[in-house]
Amino acid sequence: MTNIQSFFRQSQEQVEHLLKIELARHSNISSHLNEAIHYSIFNGGKRFRPSLCYATAIALGASAGKVSCAAAAIELIHCYSLVHDDLPAIDNDDLRRGKPTCHKAFDEATAILVGDALQAYSFELLISLNPEIPAAHKLQMTLSLAKACGFEGMAAGQALDIASTNQICSLDQLETIHRFKTGKIISACIDLSAQALAFEGSKQHQALQCYAQALGLAFQVKDDILDIEGSTETLGKNKGADQLLNKNTYPSLLGLIAAKEKAEQLNQKAIAALEIFGSEADLLRDISHYVIHREN
Amino acid sequence: MTNIQSFFRQSQEQVEHLLKIELARHSNISSHLNEAIHYSIFNGGKRFRPSLCYATAIALGASAGKVSCAAAAIELIHCYSLVHDDLPAIDNDDLRRGKPTCHKAFDEATAILVGDALQAYSFELLISLNPEIPAAHKLQMTLSLAKACGFEGMAAGQALDIASTNQICSLDQLETIHRFKTGKIISACIDLSAQALAFEGSKQHQALQCYAQALGLAFQVKDDILDIEGSTETLGKNKGADQLLNKNTYPSLLGLIAAKEKAEQLNQKAIAALEIFGSEADLLRDISHYVIHREN
Repeated sequence: MTNIQSFFRQSQEQVEHLLKIELARHSNISSHLNEAIHYSIFNGGKRFRPSLCYATAIALGASAGKVSCAAAAIELIHCYSLVHDDLPAIDNDDLRRGKPTCHKAFDEATAILVGDALQAYSFELLISLNPEIPAAHKLQMTLSLAKACGFEGMAAGQALDIASTNQICSLDQLETIHRFKTGKIISACIDLSAQALAFEGSKQHQALQCYAQALGLAFQVKDDILDIEGSTETLGKNKGADQLLNKNTYPSLLGLIAAKEKAEQLNQKAIAALEIFGSEADLLRDISHYVIHREN
Repeated sequence: MTNIQSFFRQSQEQVEHLLKIELARHSNISSHLNEAIHYSIFNGGKRFRPSLCYATAIALGASAGKVSCAAAAIELIHCYSLVHDDLPAIDNDDLRRGKPTCHKAFDEATAILVGDALQAYSFELLISLNPEIPAAHKLQMTLSLAKACGFEGMAAGQALDIASTNQICSLDQLETIHRFKTGKIISACIDLSAQALAFEGSKQHQALQCYAQALGLAFQVKDDILDIEGSTETLGKNKGADQLLNKNTYPSLLGLIAAKEKAEQLNQKAIAALEIFGSEADLLRDISHYVIHREN
């Protein structure tokens, strides 16, 4: 196992352990809803966003545990967005990480409520974990997360994505979609971690923001490439789903070869943004490399 | 116009004015989503929850404007919950306040995203408005709101409600459903306002919590009665929808006369909880009276 794979494994264990402990503290009002929530959280997710939070903390000279609240909260936002995106009215996906999607395993009403409850729970955990973070910083983090999710963030990106389906859009338009749909939450990993560690607005934070912007886009370009080149088995979701939905993707606009070049350029850009850091940012460099070379 | 009607009108204008100003500050990334968000917020809502926040502030000796953040945030949570509840997979309602529901006026995907974006925006406004409130109190308010919405709050109540459909439940079970489904958010009006004004945990706050619990239940009992006795015209939604969905209601479990008695008992209980207050709580008393005598 490479260094980065072992870091991902460790991050995955760390955030899942935390989420399990926190969920167990809650009373079981609707066991049906709770079961569906557990199903939607503990589904073999890679926990890429928590890893990014932890690696940011390490780059800023702190231990991963100092940004647990950000890691857990952002992962829950990611989980909720997948549950809602998979719904019949949006992407209509039956398979997620090799298992039936939430609305298939349960039902549509439950999947809507799971997403709603997970969004609320994300804010709850962000506030209640890491109580050593000063209230003013916590509030700033909560505001950043809310903005990254809402109608100037992920939800706007999703709306743009839906509107662009069946229409050919420009490369600029495609970048705008992804800057909001996936980019805002990836940037939130950096922003919340920097805010937790009192680095808001510092030159390190600015460099990390440039890194996150390139990384977020690279992540999406690679996702689009995997939708063509990956297999349903390694992806854990149906291959070719984008084509089936007639979605604009980097390969569909640029061609597959140019899309791969674009991913590599974005990787270089992300790495270059980290030049003010020494070896403490090696995990972030490895994450960027991983993003464009991963197989799922 | 009675005193309370004029107070409701004033509260409605106050919160709508604030929401309009705040929404106008935002950039228009997805005009389609923004249009649907405006449609879902400015739809002739009574703004009962903001009125309750303002009346709580007045009962605690403060001006209504001191709890604007709570009023706006809670109203947005309410708006989001209506949009999601109306979806075909949940209540499948075509009509809301006399107009097509969001998924009918737009489409289902948009309605899902509107709800998601409004929940995030609720937290954004809660944090950014009333910056004079100390960060520690603001954080407490945000935590209270997140808990009131999530899987130990409104979402749990909605899940219980769906699970109980087509099954006869006991009066205790029905109360549990409503304590979560509508009660938690009505209690949040009191809690957030008390926290904003540094009354958290005081004897006034405790009295107001008792008031809110009775009021929340009275609100639901009256809703159930109106579903039978109201007209589609005054209700702005289809009369008899509960019966059509085979839902458990207070009239279906108790009979109509006993349900009316129950509403009156809860009104008395709400008023009694306010006995430590003088005339500064008259608006809260009037609100309780209004709840069980309203026509829509």
